[in-house]
This record gives sequence, C-alpha cells and structure tokens, in this order.
Amino acid sequence: MRYGFGVDVGGTTVKLGLLSEDGAMPERWEIPTRTGNGGAEILPDIALELTACIRRRGLEKSALLGVGIGVPGPVNEYGVVNRCVNLNWGVVDVGKTLGQLTGLNVRVGNDANCAALGEYWKGGGAGSRSAMLVTLGTGIGGGIIWNGRLLTGAHGVAGELGHISVCADETVRCTCGKTNCVEQFASAGGIVRLARKRLEDGDRPSFLRALPGFCCEDVFAAAAAGDALAGETLEQVYDCLAQALAAACCVCDPECVILGGGVSNAGEVLRAGVERRFRVHRFHACRDTRFVLAKLGNDAGICGAFRLQVLD
Amino acid sequence: MRYGFGVDVGGTTVKLGLLSEDGAMPERWEIPTRTGNGGAEILPDIALELTACIRRRGLEKSALLGVGIGVPGPVNEYGVVNRCVNLNWGVVDVGKTLGQLTGLNVRVGNDANCAALGEYWKGGGAGSRSAMLVTLGTGIGGGIIWNGRLLTGAHGVAGELGHISVCADETVRCTCGKTNCVEQFASAGGIVRLARKRLEDGDRPSFLRALPGFCCEDVFAAAAAGDALAGETLEQVYDCLAQALAAACCVCDPECVILGGGVSNAGEVLRAGVERRFRVHRFHACRDTRFVLAKLGNDAGICGAFRLQVLD
Repeated sequence: MRYGFGVDVGGTTVKLGLLSEDGAMPERWEIPTRTGNGGAEILPDIALELTACIRRRGLEKSALLGVGIGVPGPVNEYGVVNRCVNLNWGVVDVGKTLGQLTGLNVRVGNDANCAALGEYWKGGGAGSRSAMLVTLGTGIGGGIIWNGRLLTGAHGVAGELGHISVCADETVRCTCGKTNCVEQFASAGGIVRLARKRLEDGDRPSFLRALPGFCCEDVFAAAAAGDALAGETLEQVYDCLAQALAAACCVCDPECVILGGGVSNAGEVLRAGVERRFRVHRFHACRDTRFVLAKLGNDAGICGAFRLQVLD
Repeated sequence: MRYGFGVDVGGTTVKLGLLSEDGAMPERWEIPTRTGNGGAEILPDIALELTACIRRRGLEKSALLGVGIGVPGPVNEYGVVNRCVNLNWGVVDVGKTLGQLTGLNVRVGNDANCAALGEYWKGGGAGSRSAMLVTLGTGIGGGIIWNGRLLTGAHGVAGELGHISVCADETVRCTCGKTNCVEQFASAGGIVRLARKRLEDGDRPSFLRALPGFCCEDVFAAAAAGDALAGETLEQVYDCLAQALAAACCVCDPECVILGGGVSNAGEVLRAGVERRFRVHRFHACRDTRFVLAKLGNDAGICGAFRLQVLD
C-alpha cells in the first residue's frame, strides 16, 4: 500500500492529509493560510508540516507517492499557478517550489477540480466512470472527471459551471461582468438575492420578513415550514441550476452530477428539486443521469489532491 | 508507415478511405448505403469493399492497423450501436460483426465525434491540444477532443451541442421535444425558419420575398447583397450560436472551436459573426478561444474514423 499527501489550500486555512491508495486517511490536520507578504510563507509552511509528519511517523520518502496540492486559481499543465487572488499570489511555480522544499514529487491542481476528483474517487460519485461536481457556495464552481481523468481545459476554465448563462431577465451583473450567469441565481448569495427581490416586489407575507439579515439556510428553513415565497424562490433556484446542468450534460454527459458546496447542506430537498427541474430541461438521452449529494464535505479537496498523484 | 481504413457510414452513402498514419489518403471511394432489410447488408457490403481493396493493393492484413468506422448513432465503449434510425439498425454489434467479416481490428465511433477527431487531426483544429467541432447542417451536432481523446459521454451525448438551450422566446418545439434548443436557430432549417418569421412579421422589403422556397444559402447571399432583414436574421443566428458555444466553453474549455457542416460553407462571414457575438457571451478566461472553419469537408468522418485506431 502506497501513501502520499493531499493538501487543499484555501484563503483562510490549509487542510493537509496523509492518505493511502485505498482511501484511508490516518492523519488530517489544518494550519492557517498566511497570505501576508504576497503569500510567500504559504508553501514553506506546508513543506514544514509535511516534513514534520514524515519524521514523526518514520516514513521513508522514497516509499511515498509524493504530494498533491489544490489551489484556488487556474493551474497550467506544468503546475504553474497564474494569480490566486485569495492567496495574494501572482505567477507561482507551485510544483517546482514545493518540490524543492520537500524533495517530494508534486502534482498541482485547481481546488474545485480536486474536490471533483475526491468526490469521484470516494464520495458521491464513487463507482461512476464519469462525474461532474457542481459546488454551490459563495460562488458556483465545479469539476469534471471523465474515465478517471480531470478535464482541465485549454485556459483552466473547464468545469466553470457558474458562468453558464441561463434564460432569465436579470440586469444586475455577475462578478465576471456578464448577466444571467447561473451563479447569480443558485449560489448562496444568489438564493438570498432572489428571495429579497420577491420580498421587495410587494408585501406578500413571509417568515423571512422577520429576519432582515437572513441567509441561504433561512430560505430553505422557511420553505420547509411552508413559506410560499421561500418555496417559490427555491423553485426558481432549482430551475436555473437545472438549465445550466442540462446544458453542461449536452457537452460532457457525465454518468452522475454531484451537488456539493455549502448550499448542498440543504440535502435531499435540494437534490430532488434540481433533479425534478432537470427532467424538464435535459436532452432526452440524459434521462438516466443520476443526481447525488457530495459526501466528503471539507475533505473532498484533500482526497482529490492526493488522487492527482495517481493520474497519468 | 502504417496503413488502415476509415469508413464513414451515412444514411445515403458509405464513404471509405485507405489512409496512412501521416494523413495521406491514397484511395477514397463511396458506395450506396443499402438500408433495406433492416440495414443487414451494410456491414457485409463494407467488408467486401475492404477485402477487395486489400487484394488489389496486395496489402498484408497483418501490416494493417485495421478499420475505424463512424456510424450515425450512439455507440457504447464496446463498439455496440443502439439504434441508428437512418440505417434501420436496432442494436448492432458493429465491432464484432465487421471484425468477423474482415478479420481486421475494428474501432467504432459516432459519426459527429469522428468528424471532430478528423478536423482535430488534420483539419481546422490541426496543431491544437483540444478542440470542439460544431456541425451546422440539417441539425446541429458536434464532438469534443481533449488531449487527443474523444469525449464520448456516459450516454453517448457528449458533444450534442445542438440541444443546448439558449435564451429566446420560442414556443415551437425542437425535434427532441424541448424548446429553445440552439438547433432551432442556427441549423440550416433554423436559419430559414427565422428569416420566414421576420418576413411574415410585417411587410418589410427583402430580396427573400421573391424566393418563396429559399434556403439557408439564399439568406447568406441576401445579407451579403445588403438585405437588412436577412442581415438581422443572421445576427440572431450568430448570437444564439455564440450563447450555446459560450456555455459549452465553460464546461470543456477547448483551445479552438471549429465550425463545420453545410452551413459553414458560408465561410468567413459566419466565422467572424459567431466569434464577434461569442465575445459578448463568453466567460472572460475564454477570451483566447480561437474560432476556425472546418477544412476537410466530407472527408472529416473518414479521417476521424481512421484515427480512432490510434487512440487508446
């Protein structure tokens, strides 16, 4: 059994794990992400952690697969990152730098792609030949796995599902500059925005009126309690997301679609709602596309980053 | 230099070619597709043609790569076709049957995917790492190549770009049963339909009024001659197609988009028009996505089918 590391670099914390090929994770820990000084401390901090783990466990470096690392930005095929806003990084040769610091083989991937790879390997997509993860969080991202391989794209854009346009009459612009991006409707912020619009658009009663700073979870809770306005908001969310996923399935046709990210904590109600609206928008030959919830939570990125090492 | 066959099975003719790995095609010929009797003659007819070619050229079977064949229907990974309406086929094990008839190795692919592979190899996409072909004909189809590999999808749907929905208010249904499929707007029939709608929607002057049975080429010709109604029709066509391609690029992010099929005979005016509207709808990181015209015409399918044999 071979071991290796998986590292998931976020804007606030770095998550690290020691994993074996069979998916066990004997050790998992976190350190803060030090983004000061242009993020120059991040890779040395990670290298120290890995070296310390190797020592305390008495591991042989030569027996290790190496380290896979996921970062929140576009990564080219040589492991070079071109701007990670959250880390204050410009162009950083992550593969080379971390390799020199640790003496380990390093594989680098985009964080959303790593999460997709993790869920495909041992999460919601386990057992599938191909899978598409859509992460519903502050924004919407995603990743696509086809026959065990990550689809990264020519410009690192593959799986950027949040910027698929849906049919709507939105005039507010997305952070990307476009309008009608699905991220404007089905991200955590998008869901709150849609509910607010309905509240402002008249004086229909709603539990949400008593919660001026309500969040996405409140909308799900209100809908579950029978609040019509919240329920209609979520129908719109499911419909917009289903439109985008139906388009994506015409392009890459995965065996299953995995719903992840913070919004997916809403669980079965979300999964069933999106699947129901997908049936309206999907191409008929995608009638068997399965919808599943992500299972690994915050560990998806670590697991997928580890897994980068066994891809060719 | 290794040789092999490429076969492109259409509803009317079967196109056959003898090719070498360097892309030369010393022989190319066609036979009618005999669709009677449940299409039972099609594979034996092809086998006879290949056997005859091997004999007259004195080729050694053992020195041949084999035969790649593209068929107009969904193909699973084992080379089994599940219904080709145009060929009157139900479930046909093309790989096994043609292999037994010829004694050659057989690889089977979907025809649109084969065309994409051909254009990627030695057509409009030559030199690219990844490419997406969109075929604009009676319908709209396509194929996606990523690092030399065909993306086929879990249900044979990958690259079915024609059934991506675009933002429009169409109530007429697509042949697939949905509405607002890009195929309804940017296929040959879709273009004529959009022009007709504009003609019926008032009494604006247009050259097209003098051509009751006008076709797609007439719309391009009228627009080139300064016909405003035809020009506006094409703007709508470019916009709808660009919307769908922008969505597709968020999913698979190819290095280049190849425009093929009969409609692409319109040439540079089409390419430039679609690229111009793509800039409006695309995610910013796809700003360098190149738009090129297909180059191989009717030979794309033969070339790509041949090429199936060198993929692993």
